[in-house]
This record gives sequence, structure tokens and C-alpha cells, in this order.
Amino acid sequence: MEKIAIIGCGLIGQGWAAVFAQAGFAVALYDAAPNAAKAALDAMDQRIADLAEFDLIDPADAPAILSRFSVAKSLADALEETVYVQENGPERVEVKRSLTTEIDALAAPDVPIGSSTSGISASRYCEEIPGRHRCLVVHPINPPHLIPAVEIVPTPWTDAIVTKRVEEIMTQARRETIVLSREIDGFVVNRLQGALLEEAFRLVGDGIVSAKDLDKAICEGLGLRWSFMGPMKTIHLNAPGGVADYVARYGQMYRGFGVAPADAPDWADVVDRSLGAEMERLIPLQDLPDAQATRDRTLMALLRHKARSQSNL
Amino acid sequence: MEKIAIIGCGLIGQGWAAVFAQAGFAVALYDAAPNAAKAALDAMDQRIADLAEFDLIDPADAPAILSRFSVAKSLADALEETVYVQENGPERVEVKRSLTTEIDALAAPDVPIGSSTSGISASRYCEEIPGRHRCLVVHPINPPHLIPAVEIVPTPWTDAIVTKRVEEIMTQARRETIVLSREIDGFVVNRLQGALLEEAFRLVGDGIVSAKDLDKAICEGLGLRWSFMGPMKTIHLNAPGGVADYVARYGQMYRGFGVAPADAPDWADVVDRSLGAEMERLIPLQDLPDAQATRDRTLMALLRHKARSQSNL
Repeated sequence: MEKIAIIGCGLIGQGWAAVFAQAGFAVALYDAAPNAAKAALDAMDQRIADLAEFDLIDPADAPAILSRFSVAKSLADALEETVYVQENGPERVEVKRSLTTEIDALAAPDVPIGSSTSGISASRYCEEIPGRHRCLVVHPINPPHLIPAVEIVPTPWTDAIVTKRVEEIMTQARRETIVLSREIDGFVVNRLQGALLEEAFRLVGDGIVSAKDLDKAICEGLGLRWSFMGPMKTIHLNAPGGVADYVARYGQMYRGFGVAPADAPDWADVVDRSLGAEMERLIPLQDLPDAQATRDRTLMALLRHKARSQSNL
Repeated sequence: MEKIAIIGCGLIGQGWAAVFAQAGFAVALYDAAPNAAKAALDAMDQRIADLAEFDLIDPADAPAILSRFSVAKSLADALEETVYVQENGPERVEVKRSLTTEIDALAAPDVPIGSSTSGISASRYCEEIPGRHRCLVVHPINPPHLIPAVEIVPTPWTDAIVTKRVEEIMTQARRETIVLSREIDGFVVNRLQGALLEEAFRLVGDGIVSAKDLDKAICEGLGLRWSFMGPMKTIHLNAPGGVADYVARYGQMYRGFGVAPADAPDWADVVDRSLGAEMERLIPLQDLPDAQATRDRTLMALLRHKARSQSNL
């Protein structure tokens, strides 16, 4: 059984612990605050029971999953023989720097050190650390044990083998990986959320629509498809000729809304450079009708689920 | 049985027809192209069968639903004794103007004339029409019979009573209404989608992330919550003090990403002016813990649904 060290046992650390234990890893819990790791361990019973209640784990597996957690006596103890370190310390550059320096001194060479930070690119604290080649951001979406997406963000010094190894571990942990080529503020998830929120605040702020009605545009509209299909696949399926055709038909219309920042790229250029070829590789044009039929069936299954669970929750 | 006229029987008109017939309205189908209304009627069998297969209607009700459709012999025939007109003509201003002028001349006074247009504000074609007070946009999301959200967009001349009446009809038709106070290009749904797409094209165009991984940020990340909870409720639940607290904690961070257009408002101002009070009215701060627990349970139910239906579809 491979062992993973969870350093920092707040809600994010606890979520990660549940993720790794479900996937069969031994999980060592460590927190600098006395008793925090023990409290995290105590909280696991409820978390695992919740997952069992919703069939996200087999209830018969709960005891085995719970048996995989251990409270480490020290940072060194937590790091002993781990294959991966997930650091969930406070969101301050100085704390990240000193904590990561300590971890780097204690963990075996080449064990990746991933940080859960949502706001601090790892290059801001790891440049002077001897093992900076094994430091990177591995950012979950809250709550980590429920949302599969995980962003993997290498620094300029992160070894490609380390990034690859983290991808493997995350796949083993049944996460859905989003691998960035380089650091960017907000990574991908929060930049997309931010772009949508910027327009949402404008529409509500200008009195165009209430917040309640704006929310319906997503949760009774766009968000239904987006729960099983991302925005690029959505537009690829929304024109007979795929994404290139969609951009030719609607690109100018969208740009005319005035929702883009000044330095937004031309959509057709993006299609020409790489997007068109990638989408055609993912879903060739001749497969679009089948993909559209699957989309509609998936949507109907989701609507049935929503109708049923509204009476259940 | 109240009667609704569907003018224009392409895919959007057919979706609307299914919506109204399910809700118990008589639906008259009319299309200027010969045989188009008849073809639409023939397509209804499959559409209603699909809805029955996914329990979105009771299979026993299918014959009654199908019996509510009729093919009108003429525009005048379609409009006779209708309570509402849904126009789904081609997306050209001149066509909208001439078609709406004809409808206005034939339909009984004060019957609302809603247009399905996604790109043409009704003021662009109805200013000179005698009944402009009853013209407005009633914009569905494709496919209309599956996505509940409907945008209602009055022109400067639309009578408030007409807008109210359309809201009632849409609620009777089990739609989720998004009522705009005034016209704006792209309305709400496509502006929000456009804002997200602008950032998506930038990230893919700059080579930060593949389209495949970008899509996961939504369909394995943000889109899960968004399928049952809009972005404003999402952030209201993501800080102990609600939306005002969220903006105080993270507003500067988001603005720092550079994803906003130049004229984006200050989020804190929007909170102060109206948003804070509206969200507090929708979910008072003392109810946040319950709402958070419901969110997590809804999320687990959704994950269970996705796990099950991946093996079914």
C-alpha cells in the first residue's frame, strides 16, 4: 500500500485524505497545530458515512477505508516512505516557503510536493528551495472529496517527470486532471469563474436582472449541459461544422457584447492555431450527430435526476 | 383548453410546441413554408416518446399530449383565439418586422407576441408596428423542451401587463423565467456564456491548457454545482458572511486576474447597492450552514447520478 502525506488537516486536507484513502492509499495526517490531525481523523467517520449514504463508496468498504488513516507523530514521521506530499498550509507565501523547505529537507528525493493553494503560484515560494524541481501546485476544487477536477500547475523549475508522476497519482486517486503548461494567476478554474462573475456583477449592478433570475440562467440553463460537457465541446456540438463553423457563425456576435477584456484574442485565430484540430481529433465532424444525440439523452437523464432528487432532498 | 400559436416550425418551434402541449395547452402549428408544420407534427411522436422514455412525462399521458397539436391552415387560422403567440421565424430583422406586422394585424388585441430570437432585440423591428406594446423577446435555450430557462426581454414600449402575462404563461408552461428590466445585446444567458468563452479562448489560444483539460474545469468542476445552483448563490455560500464577505475576501484577487472588460463595476459597490440585500433576503446568513449542507448533499446525489448514468448511456 503506497503512502501519501497530508500536511495541514483543515477542510481541504480532510477532503484530500478522503480522496486518497478511497483509492487505496495509506494516508498519514500531520498538522503543526496540536490535535488538529487527531480532530481530522475523528471527522473522517462522518465524511466516509456520507459517501456511503450516496453510494459513492460501497458501505462494506468503509472500515477498510477508515483503517488507512493514521495520525503522524511528527512531520518526519508523516513523510517517511511517502510517494507524494499534499501540502495544505495557510495561504501566506512565508508560511508556504518555510513549510515547503522543511518538507523538502525531510522527504525522500524526487517525491513530489504538491500545494493546495488557490492563490499562490509555487514559484513565489520555492525558487530558493533545493528541491524546487519537485514543487508544484495541485489545486483541488472545494470540497476536494466531491469535486473530481484538480489543477496541476508546474513552476518554471518543475521537472517534467515530477509533473507526469503527479498526473499518474491523481489519476490513480480518480481525479480529473487539468494540466497547465505554465503558471498563470487564478489558474484555469478560478479564471473561468472570475470571467463569468465579472459579467454577472455587471448585469446585476446595472439593474438588468435580479441575482435570483441571473442564477436561473446558469442552474436552469447553461449549467445543465456544463455538468457533463465543457464549454468547448458545447460549442463544437452547436454548429453543423463544429467549432470552426460555430466561431464563423457567432464569433462576431459574442465579441459585440463587450464582455471581453481589451487583450482578448481573435477566436478564429485560436481555432486556426490549435483549437479546430484538437476538437476535430476529440470528436470528428462525422461523429457530431451521434455526440448530439448522446448530449440530449444525457440532458434528459439529468432532468429526470433533478426532478426525482428535488423530492428526495 | 387555452390555445397557443407556434409561428415557425423549425427545431425551436418544435421544442416550444412540446413545452406547451405538455403543460396542457392546445398548440396550433403554422409555418410559411408548405408542409413544414405537417413535418413538425410528424416529428412530435419521437420527441414525446423520448420524454416518456426518460420519465419526463408519464407515458400514459402521451396520447393526450399528442392530441393537443394541430396544423393551422393559415396564419389567421393559427392565431384565432390564441392566448399567446411564439414566433420562431428566421433571424433577420426584415423578416421579423414583416412577420410580426402580419401577426399583429391578425391576433386579438393584447395577446402577447413573443419572439424566440437569440440575437435581435425586438425594438429593432417593432417600433413602427401598431401593437408594439405587446411585442417582446421570449428566448429559449436550445433545445427548448429540455432546458427550462427562458429569457423575457421587454422593449421600451412593451406594456408591463404584457410582460407580466408572459411570465404567467411561461410559469404555467413550467419554464424558469429570467426577466430582464430592459434590452441588452446577448440578453443574460449568452452574455454569461460569452464572458466564459472569451477567457476559455484566451487560455487555449495562449497554450496554457488544452481544450480537453479546459472542458474538465467546467464539467468535472464548476459545472457540477452550477447544474443546481447559480453563480451568485455559489459565492454567497462560499464565505461565512455570505456574498459581502466573499467579495471582501476574494474580489481583489479576481479583479487581479485581468479577465474583466475595462468598464467592469466594482464588486463591493454592486453588493452595497442591491446584491447583498437580495442574497440576504433569499438566504439569510443564519441559514447558510443548512444551505451548505444541502449543497453538499445535492452534489453527492449528482455524482451518484453521473456514476450510474455513465454505465447506462
